[in-house]
Parts: sequence; C-alpha cells; structure tokens
Amino acid sequence: MDKFNVIVIGAGPAGLKTAMRLKRLDFNQRILVIDKGTYPSFAACGMPFYLEGLVKDFNDLQKTSFGSLRDKNYFKNYANIDLLLNYLVTEIDPKSKTVLALNNASNEKFKFQYNKLVISTGSQAIVPPIEGLSIEDKNLFTLKSPSDVIKIKSYLEENEVNSVCILGSGLIGCEVASSLFNSNIDVSLFEIFDWPLATLIDKEIGLYLKKQMFNSGIEIYTGEKIVKFVSENKKTIKAISEKREVNADMFLICSGVRPNTEIAKKAGLEISARGSIVTNEFLQTSNPDIYAVGDCIEIKNLLTNKTFYAPMATYANRLGRLVANNIIKNNSQAFDGAIGTAIVKILDFNIARTGLSEKEAKDLNINFETVYYSGFDKPHYMTESNKINIKLIFDKNTDNLIGAQCIGKKASVDKTIDVAATIIQNKIPHNKVLNLDLSYSPPFSNSVDILVQGFQIYENKKNNMYKGISFEEVKEMFEKDNNMENVVLLDVRSEDEFKRVPSPFKNAINIPIDYLYNSDLEYIKNKKIIIFCGTGSRSYQASVMLKNKGFKEIYNLEAGVSGFY
Amino acid sequence: MDKFNVIVIGAGPAGLKTAMRLKRLDFNQRILVIDKGTYPSFAACGMPFYLEGLVKDFNDLQKTSFGSLRDKNYFKNYANIDLLLNYLVTEIDPKSKTVLALNNASNEKFKFQYNKLVISTGSQAIVPPIEGLSIEDKNLFTLKSPSDVIKIKSYLEENEVNSVCILGSGLIGCEVASSLFNSNIDVSLFEIFDWPLATLIDKEIGLYLKKQMFNSGIEIYTGEKIVKFVSENKKTIKAISEKREVNADMFLICSGVRPNTEIAKKAGLEISARGSIVTNEFLQTSNPDIYAVGDCIEIKNLLTNKTFYAPMATYANRLGRLVANNIIKNNSQAFDGAIGTAIVKILDFNIARTGLSEKEAKDLNINFETVYYSGFDKPHYMTESNKINIKLIFDKNTDNLIGAQCIGKKASVDKTIDVAATIIQNKIPHNKVLNLDLSYSPPFSNSVDILVQGFQIYENKKNNMYKGISFEEVKEMFEKDNNMENVVLLDVRSEDEFKRVPSPFKNAINIPIDYLYNSDLEYIKNKKIIIFCGTGSRSYQASVMLKNKGFKEIYNLEAGVSGFY
Repeated sequence: MDKFNVIVIGAGPAGLKTAMRLKRLDFNQRILVIDKGTYPSFAACGMPFYLEGLVKDFNDLQKTSFGSLRDKNYFKNYANIDLLLNYLVTEIDPKSKTVLALNNASNEKFKFQYNKLVISTGSQAIVPPIEGLSIEDKNLFTLKSPSDVIKIKSYLEENEVNSVCILGSGLIGCEVASSLFNSNIDVSLFEIFDWPLATLIDKEIGLYLKKQMFNSGIEIYTGEKIVKFVSENKKTIKAISEKREVNADMFLICSGVRPNTEIAKKAGLEISARGSIVTNEFLQTSNPDIYAVGDCIEIKNLLTNKTFYAPMATYANRLGRLVANNIIKNNSQAFDGAIGTAIVKILDFNIARTGLSEKEAKDLNINFETVYYSGFDKPHYMTESNKINIKLIFDKNTDNLIGAQCIGKKASVDKTIDVAATIIQNKIPHNKVLNLDLSYSPPFSNSVDILVQGFQIYENKKNNMYKGISFEEVKEMFEKDNNMENVVLLDVRSEDEFKRVPSPFKNAINIPIDYLYNSDLEYIKNKKIIIFCGTGSRSYQASVMLKNKGFKEIYNLEAGVSGFY
Repeated sequence: MDKFNVIVIGAGPAGLKTAMRLKRLDFNQRILVIDKGTYPSFAACGMPFYLEGLVKDFNDLQKTSFGSLRDKNYFKNYANIDLLLNYLVTEIDPKSKTVLALNNASNEKFKFQYNKLVISTGSQAIVPPIEGLSIEDKNLFTLKSPSDVIKIKSYLEENEVNSVCILGSGLIGCEVASSLFNSNIDVSLFEIFDWPLATLIDKEIGLYLKKQMFNSGIEIYTGEKIVKFVSENKKTIKAISEKREVNADMFLICSGVRPNTEIAKKAGLEISARGSIVTNEFLQTSNPDIYAVGDCIEIKNLLTNKTFYAPMATYANRLGRLVANNIIKNNSQAFDGAIGTAIVKILDFNIARTGLSEKEAKDLNINFETVYYSGFDKPHYMTESNKINIKLIFDKNTDNLIGAQCIGKKASVDKTIDVAATIIQNKIPHNKVLNLDLSYSPPFSNSVDILVQGFQIYENKKNNMYKGISFEEVKEMFEKDNNMENVVLLDVRSEDEFKRVPSPFKNAINIPIDYLYNSDLEYIKNKKIIIFCGTGSRSYQASVMLKNKGFKEIYNLEAGVSGFY
C-alpha cells in the first residue's frame, strides 16, 4: 500500500492550494491529491464570463497566468505532486489512516495511507424540491461544476435559446442572469426574497439594484416562489409561480450550494447543524490528523463570533495556505475569521458589501446608526466619473464602522469596499478614518474620498447637524396618508433637474437652493419639512439654513433622488 | 469698520472648505473670504485634463457636481458667505485683529476686523534661477493658477504648437507631459534626478516608469540639468542642458511650488526653515487667534514624526474641515498627520505610492526588508486583466508594512495603494493583513488580492524560503564582470516567452519550469544561480525545487522580466 505524508481529497482551489503550499514548505513531502472529476484547479468563478464569451476558451479557466494548463502533468512537473483524477474516495478509515478510492473507469479500488489527511470535497448545487423539477431534463441545469458549464455552453451552441428562466438571485444567479442577458437572451429571474442578493444587502440597495436590472430589461420577479415546473419530452417548458407562468427555452437552478460531507460523516467526523464539517481554528476536524478546508466547512465570522457558510474561492485559497502551514509547522497559525466581504458585477452595475448588514446588526442587538448617501467616485468634471450609492452602518457605542454596502454603474465599488473591509476587520476608530491618507488625483478619486465622506456624514448625523429619513419611510408616510397636509416635500435641486427627474411623490415643491435663503418660507414654517436633492448634499446644506431660520422639524431624504427605486 | 467672526485669506479649496464648514457648524457666524484672484474654489488638479481637452469647459473646474458655478453669488446664496475677489490682503495686524485689503481695480484700501483669522494663501510656482529664463516670454509658462492654465490654453489655441519642452518631472510635470503628448505635441521632459517622480518613488519603479514614458514617445532626459534658455523677440526658442539643446514651440517650468507667506511673515508669525507658516496640531499659528491651512503650511508626517511640505488638495480639504471644527469647538480636534500618499496617471500608466520610500526608510535608520513583484490586478482570463508591479517595504523589527509603491498600465493601483495606506497609517499587523477579507470576483480582483500576495511573499522571504535579487544588482554584477563565469542566469519561462522577450543579459539559459525538475543540472550545481521568469512566481517555485536538489546559492530575480527597465 502506497504511503503519503499528506493525502488531499478534492482538487479544487482549496485542495490544490494546500498541496502546492505543502510542497513549497517541504519539497520532500509525498503528497497525493485525489479527485472524482476531470478538471483540477478549475476557476469556477469564471464560469459566468465563459458563458458570456468574455473568457474565450474553457481551458483558460484551468490555466495559470503564464498559460500552462493545470493538468495532472503540470502538478507532477511543477511540484512533484501526484494527482489522481476520476477517482472517487469512498471511505476514510481514521484508525488505519487510510482512504479507499474507486477508479471511476475501471471500478477498481485502491487503498492509500496518509499521515495527515485534508478533506476539500467542496460543495454541490442545491436542487430544491419543487413539483415537476427534473434535473434530468435536457434544458434544465445547475451551475456549479466544470461539467455543468460544459453542458450549458454546448446546449446554448446547439439549440436556439432565446429565453432563460433562472431560479434564485444570489451571486451566481445574478451573474449568470447578467451574462445571458448580455448574450441577447431574454432573462426571467425569480427570487423568493423581496430583492436580489437578499442575504447580502439591505433593502435600499437591494431594491435599487432590482430597479436597475428591471430597467435594463431583465424580468425580475421578487417575493415570488416557483411552485411547479412543467416538462415535456425530457425538456422543461414552463415555470409556474404563485403569480405567473413563464415559458423559456432554458432553465437554471441557482439555489445555492451545500457542502459535500458524506465521506466525512461516514468516517465519524463531527458535522455541524448546517451540515458542514466542523473544524477548529487550525482547520482540524474532530480527528486531529484530519483537516478540512474550502466549501465543505463553515468559517468563523469575526463580527458575530459565530460560524457562517461562505463557499467562496477567496476563503478557499487563504485557508488552503493556512492548512499547509499548520500541517508543516505544527498548528502554529490560527484562522482569525472573516467578515463576509462580497462583490459582484451585474450588467454594468458593481455591487459590493462587507461586515454586517442592517438586518444582521439588528439580530445582534447592536445599537447602530446608518448613513445612506450618493456621490461620484471621481470629480464630476472627469468623463469617467460614476455615481455610487453607499450605505454605512456604525456601532453607536464605539462609533466604529461595522458594515458597508455600495452600488454604482461602472463605479469603483471594489476600492470603497476593500478600504471599508480593512477598517471594519481591524476596528479602526472613526476619527482615524476621517484622517485617512487615501490617494487623490482626478482620474482616480475625489479630494475627499467617497468613503471618508460617509464618515463625515456620520459625524454630522451623530452631532445632530441633520436628521435623516429614508425613501422607504417617506413612501410609508404617503401610503398611510396620501394627502400629508402637514408635510412639505421640498426639492432644492435646480428647476431643470426637477423637470428631468421628477419626485415619485406628489406635491413636492421645488425651491432651488440658490433661492432658498432669501425665499419667504413662513407659510410652511410649522410643517414637517422633508428636503431632498440629487444626492443628499444640497439638502444637508438646505437643512442647515432652514434650521437657522427657525424651522423645527426638518428631515433630509438620504441619498436624495439618486436613492429612488 | 466691518467686523467678522472669521476672516479667511485665500479662496482656494482650503479656505473655502473652512468657510463652508464654519457656516454649517454655526450659520450665524459672519464670515469674510478675501482673495487676490478671480476664480474661487478652483479645482487646480483638473488643469492638466483641461489642457488635454478631457475637461471640456474651463468653468467645469469651478462648478459643483450639480452644475452650479462657485462664484461670489454662489457662496452668498448657498451659505451667506461674503467673498471679496480681486482684493489683495497687504497686511495683518494681530494686535488690533485687523486685515488691510487692497482693491486691485480701484487701488482703494479697506480694513476689516476679525475674531479669528485663517490664512490659506496657498503657494506659487518656483521659477529656478537659470540663465536666460524669462517668465515674461510669450511661450514660457508655469502651471499653478487658473490664470496660468488660461494663458497656456489660449497660447495652444492661437499658435501652432508642435513641441513642448518641460522642466521638471514631478507630479505636475509628468501630468502635463502626458496631457500634451496625448494632444499630439512632441514632448521633451528634463529632470535633474535620475528618474521621474524621484522624490516619491524608488529606483526600480522610477526607471520602469521612465522606460514606459520613453517607449511611448516622450523624450525624457533624466539626471540632466537645463543650464540655459535662449530667447528671441520675447519668445523662448531653446533650452540647453549639459548634454543637448532642445528647440521647442512652448516651454513649461514645473519645478514645484513654494508657500505664499509674505503677509504672515510681515505679521510676525513663525515661519519654518523651509519657509512655510508654522502651525500646531490644531492648525494654529504662533498667534493663537490665527490659523493657517493648505499649501502655505507644512504638515506632520506620521511615519517620520517630522513635518513635510505636501501642497495637495486632499490635505487642503481635510485640514479646512478641521480648522473650522477647531474654531467653533475650541481646538478639540488635533491633526494626526499624514503618510504621503500620492497617485498620478501618466499616459496609460497609473502610479501610486504611500508611506516611506526605501530611501526614506534608510534615512530613518529603519531595519527594513523590501519585496518587489509583478502580477495581474484581475485573473489572467479576464480581458481587463492588467499587469501591476508592486514594491512593498516592511519594518523587519515589527513585520509591519511601512511603504508601498506600484505602477501598471490601466491597473487598479488606486485600490492597492488605498488599502496599503490604511494598513500603514493604522499599523495593522502583518499577520492580520494575510487574513484581510478583501472583495473578490473576477471582474475586480484575484482570489488572493495582489497586495496580500505581497505580504505572503514577504513572509516567504522572511522565512528564508527564497533569496531575492534585484534587476539593478544583476546589472551591477554584469558591469563589474561581463563574463560572470560562476553565475548562471536561469530563465524558467516557456521557450516561447524566452524568444518573445529575451533577457537583457547575455548567456541566460532557458529551461522551462516544466522540465526543470527532471533536467540534469549537475553541470551548474556549484555555480551561483539567478533564476527569473515573467513575474517572480515561477522562479520562486523553481528555487524551491533547486534547493531540494541540493543547490546552495540560488537567487530569484524579483518581478522577473516584468521588472526589466
């Protein structure tokens, strides 16, 4: 029986990162990687872009940046790693420290001995139990593995696909909706929550995103459940929700993924309530000689102190390195935890988030304050200046930033969210951020960085320099009392802007801010004033002036017209 | 005599930021802003882009993002601030707390009383004492003020300008070189230091930038001083350096700026050795009722604990807000200091830096280590993936990052440098950065962020997993001994890459990494091996393998071929 220092089950990013790092730390280690599939080190995150044609060649997703295909030979030549493809590990025996692997082609079984074992068996697509849903249908797919994307791509090439119906608007659902829409396919997207990316972003960003997707032409149905699929001749032809029936040429199930843990379970390793392999801070399972990494585990959330399931390549890579360090260096590196940073491009819109959402902060009983504002990622006079809407969540007890979300067409949300993540993860105090020395030049940013602007706004809000009100709150006010006789909605934009983008509320009056200070406003002095402008900046200035004129009840519509959805 | 709560001298970004913030904090404050010029709140950073035609209208540089021209009326209507333009403050009398202002048109003098005074008199272009240099010449300009850019723009429009000669390759010199080159004008650029941006970036980045500018078509002459200008009929026709004569249709002097401090000096305020107004951490001058802000002061560098002169809009804005807070809130907010972050776009190249340069770290006697590497800002399979070269400087005693510089064509250096700045300014420990939860999705970044990769490389270097050598060091070795019989330069790229971009050193041998492990290398085993590849990644892997084969003296050429200059 062949003996190895380390056996890795699963040749995805986490498993192969572990293997490569092991060899770099000690080239004498004998390493075996076993995988049931054909495509090791496959960049699954690139699949939506391959479907769209932005990635030209399927192999590109398996290549290094210098053009080498990461196949069996590559790992042998590059790092003397043994890679068994198309072998299914059917059993782990922790007592004898062996694994049993089945050759998929020959059906022969082989036994290998390990000193340390790393389980990186990844995840599989969830197929929800919906009446009529048949994963065997020729035109119904999940999108998780290389073979999924191969099947979808050939179906698209060999059939006339003019319409697709997608179930689920999480990260993958939205990405693939965007890719197929950009490929001139009609897209219907169903989501049971009230907005896309609902577990990641809050209502104002989510409904804003929904509006942009809808306006761009994606038929997005939220708060709506598909209750039945109809098939004919091994082809799905129709999805039926509570409200409508949608015919389509192709159907995609993007309902998330769940960890592959069968062999771990069989080996008696501890499994969490959510069904993932339980690990400690060194990524050891309940058996100290067995580590687990990647999509088959949960990781610690630094902000909630609970584990969460985050099957993402960025964690897989980071944790793979850590596992290797811990195997060679005797568990010297604990995993700190993550804060749930995520980013996605949907059509031309960039959306990102980090830290806690408002919902998560509520669930944790944190005493928090939010600011929501809009601005430009670069000076307005530059041609590449893009509008960006940002929501920040602060802990009122510490004034620390605990969450950030942003969205903008072509906007540099990645920069904003990465700086925010660095701030949140390291608990950088609020007043230190006000003085952060971020880079400025017109092709890149504003003289006051758009994220730092949010910290200034929070400072102003905290010091009662203005009171904020959300679009949602105003909508609710109107829904309760359509006349709203005691409320004045004051639009301080220019007449021209007022005409171009009217308020969605009736009865808004327009007094451009230039005339405001010298206007006779006595007739509305005792009313509740809700001021709005394009982004929230002029309305803030207006509220300062009205306060000075003795107005008592003044609210700023946060993010102004830019926040409308 | 008219009395004001606060008088601000200078209507640039710092002065008007102060004034606006003062009014927001307390709208009852009577504020007077006096400026000798015509264009308040002018976005001077946009001037190079206006010259290039990217900013269409001169007025755009004076407008708000919502299109209002920030003139005298704007500040009156928007914030009830009094603005006196074309008035020169000739005297400050700290005893009577008055300023004397001269109306430029009528020559009348006016006296105003202040409770607090803010000096934001800005800076002026330095005109070096060079033989024959006549700032009166019709075609020789500095580029500092709105009137400068107006003059240059009309000269360009009214004359056939096919060539320009620029003195100085600091931020402005490089930006305007880029703008005019992009406008199809031949550019010669002279620099007394050995590379452009020499006070900001180190040699490897600087010479790389120089090569890119040169290859793009800018005639850049470094380490070369212009000793004489030749004029004819009020026009400069020639610049003469130690090595050459350059004729041009237009000449620009970009030799930096110096603070405007004459009236401060006359008023007896303390002036620094470098000639700026001395302030404390609250931005008070030596007279506690007089504050100073913007380009006329120096600011504290957090990393050196010394002041430095950083005449940049981003500091002006931040400090203007701080001064206002301190005036209204009784000096409650100290200025922490800055770390010297800067960014610039030159042609299609983005260059940024933050923290200490290697030179600065040496001057401070810090025990430091550098890593220099190359990579892509996004996965290679994405069409918008751009190469980026990064230099990081770590304090070896703490392992903390203390400096970062990067350059890349169209690359997202702004994101990298902003995260680096956040790390440096807040002394985030090295091991915390290894676990930073930065955003990842293929349109934005790599699964391991390019900056975090540098922290991994530093960890490897610190743990002696490889020894680095710089392009410069190899060049010096060859200069000393052209034969280098005991050295092997081992290129582990593919044969194809080897042919496409040959080594600048003779005798490099090519063994693609795929064949390396199984090659017979006994014949070079006792030599010093310098391994290189495209970016430094494969050479690292190769060095691990050679070490395993018993090689003793192995060096990796940091950043590989991507670092050649």
